[in-house]
Order: sequence, then C-alpha cells, then structure tokens
Amino acid sequence: MRIALLGGTGDIGEGLALRWAHDTDHEIVIGSRDPEKAREKADAYEAEIEDRGGETKITGFENEMAADRADVIVLAVPAYHIADTIQAVSDSLTEGDILITPATGMKRDEDGFHYHKPSAGSVTTIAVEAAPEGVPVVGAFHNLAAGRLTDLDAELGIDTLLISDDETAKSTVASLAEDIEGLRALDAGSIANAAEIEALTPLLINVAMNNSGLHDLGVRFD
Amino acid sequence: MRIALLGGTGDIGEGLALRWAHDTDHEIVIGSRDPEKAREKADAYEAEIEDRGGETKITGFENEMAADRADVIVLAVPAYHIADTIQAVSDSLTEGDILITPATGMKRDEDGFHYHKPSAGSVTTIAVEAAPEGVPVVGAFHNLAAGRLTDLDAELGIDTLLISDDETAKSTVASLAEDIEGLRALDAGSIANAAEIEALTPLLINVAMNNSGLHDLGVRFD
Repeated sequence: MRIALLGGTGDIGEGLALRWAHDTDHEIVIGSRDPEKAREKADAYEAEIEDRGGETKITGFENEMAADRADVIVLAVPAYHIADTIQAVSDSLTEGDILITPATGMKRDEDGFHYHKPSAGSVTTIAVEAAPEGVPVVGAFHNLAAGRLTDLDAELGIDTLLISDDETAKSTVASLAEDIEGLRALDAGSIANAAEIEALTPLLINVAMNNSGLHDLGVRFD
Repeated sequence: MRIALLGGTGDIGEGLALRWAHDTDHEIVIGSRDPEKAREKADAYEAEIEDRGGETKITGFENEMAADRADVIVLAVPAYHIADTIQAVSDSLTEGDILITPATGMKRDEDGFHYHKPSAGSVTTIAVEAAPEGVPVVGAFHNLAAGRLTDLDAELGIDTLLISDDETAKSTVASLAEDIEGLRALDAGSIANAAEIEALTPLLINVAMNNSGLHDLGVRFD
C-alpha cells in the first residue's frame, strides 16, 4: 500500500515512516509544505533503514503531490494545521483514499499538560468536517511517544486506539498499524469517542513527567 | 491503617475492600447510608476472605461512623454523591485524615461512553472543594474495573494514577495502592491534572465494548 505522511518531517511522521519502512513493504511517501525538506528527510530515513541492512525506497514531495501518490494519508501535523492541510491536498484525494489523524490538542501550564478540547468536540472531528465527500477519516496513533517510535531499537509492546465512522477504513488502518512490530490496534468505536483518546496524550506526558524512570510512555490495555 | 470505604456496598467499594482485606493487614470499615446493609456486606466480605483461608475482621457502619473510625476514607460513591457524602461525614473527619476519590462523571449515548466534565473542572475538584480544611484529597482508583477487582482469582498487573495537591497524602495513598498485589501506583501530578484521568474510565469501557475478548480492562503505562 502507498502511505503518505504529510508533515512527515516532524517527529511523529518520522517515527511512523521509519517503522513502516523497516517492518513492511509499504511504499512510504514523505510530504511537507517544502518539497526540498521532504526529499532530504526521505533520503535520511532511507539511509537509516539501509544502515540497518534493510532495503527501502522512500520518496519526498510537497504535501499535495505526496497525497496524490498515496492510498492512505497520515496527517502528521499539529492540530491547528489539520483543516488547512486537508484543504490544501483536497484535489489530490480520490474516493477510497483514507485520511488518518493522530493529532491532539494540548495546552500546558505549571501543573502539566491538559487536553484542549476543540469546540468541534475533538481534533478528529475537525478532520472529518474538512475531509472531502467519500474520503473517510480514521483517528489513530495518538498515544505513541515519537521518541520511542523513531528509535528502531526500542520495542513497542503497546496499543493504538482506532476510531472511525467507516468500518472498512478502520479495518484497513488496523492492519497497517499491526504491520508495525509490537503495535496492537484496538477498536475504540466511532468518531464520537475521539475526545477521550486525544485526552490520553497529555495524561501520558504528565505520568512521564512525574515518575522517574518512565519516559516515552505508551499504554497497554489489559 | 484504618480504611473506611463509604459506599463500600457498591462494586468498586467491594473490590477495594476485598483486595485490601485479602492482601494486607489494614483494618477495613464498610460505610453505607444504611448501617444494616453495611454490616451485611462487611460480613459477606469477611466470609469470602475466610473461605479462602484468610483471616480478617471487617466491620460495617453508617457512613459517618465509618469515617470517624478511619484514617483514610475512600469515597466509593457515584460522582453526583461526592459532595453530599463529604458534607455528611464532615464532622467525623479530623486533620490528617485523607479522602480518596475514585469517581468519574460519564454519560452514555448510542456511540459509547463519554467523559462528562463537571463545571468545577473534574470530579476530584468537587471533592477538594467539599473537603474540610486540613483534610487532603487524593484522586486514585479511577481506572480499575470493579469486576476484576472483586474477583480475587483475577490477576491485576495494572496501574492506578494518583493526583493530589498534598504530596504526603499522595505518598500514603500510593503505599496503600501498592499494598494491593499487582497494582502499581503512578504519580500523575496535581489535582489540576484530574480530568484526563477521569476521562480514561469511559475510554476503557469503549475499548472493552468494541473488542471481543477484552473485558474488565485496566491500563498499564509502559
């Protein structure tokens, strides 16, 4: 499958790109607003996989062209760029493409991180509202620490929670998620259930901040 | 230590009572608005521990008297009874006593369970606002499935997250939590961080509802 990571030069995009490139045969396309930066990062990720004796071909393009080349498009951008980014690539999306959003809204104060719930109800809902007709949105990969994902020596052994109103799209993304070694995909229901998943991300940071020895935390439902 | 479980006849109260009675030497006091019911349940829990070859003494009283006898008071009541319950036992609390609140606010619709954030910011904050001067509040035990807790044959191997603005009280509750076999206490910071912990409870239910084979879920941070 062809997977585009828009914002694939950022840390969560890098983590997913490296994991899929390392663990699978999916074709990885890095997207960025700056095509030069996208190509540089694509080369760097490719080099990292090759250094480990793997073989892969990762390409880099401006977001719109990256989206055009892919079947599945991960919106690895901050929450406040989700709607923009979807609008910018809208003409490149065709019916049956799948949008994945891992973004959450957070604010920080002296006590720690807090979920900043958008008026739409969740960041995932913002993506749904911005998505063109016929292009389903799946929320996934919210609760993965980027530092752990990008370190290919780190074992995962954690879960990711999936939400969508499109069961077929959700099932495709579940397979892609479980193609990553050590990652288990769990179904958390429909888009209406997104806020609680997005709120788990600041909680993970708070727990890591307050307990020595815990960092780059993930979560396992058991 | 003497631990009172107000609402100790309900399922989360039962679970904590049985676990502490089984795994520790703490003195367990069951509280209820109905003292007769409290005594009946105390006898039933005692009988269950004895059936397993254990030895324990569990007593039951009306909430106010139960609180009076204890050093640590768990408010094992629904969120909408937290403030009432604290007010009802207020005269029985003495400086240095610790209140523990495991309650969360949830609403259900056709999609699943959702966190119902109170206007105070969290259910834990409601408890803080109702607590008498000098009686610290610790949020704990929110994300434990009652069914798993009450089944003494079930292994836990899960975490509970603690929040408080009183570090000494939080540390006492962390010890009490870890006295339960298979339960790890993690520090999630101050009361300001409560909402994300409370929101995890509906998420656990949604995950259990949507994945066959998963039920009575807990969570492990790793």
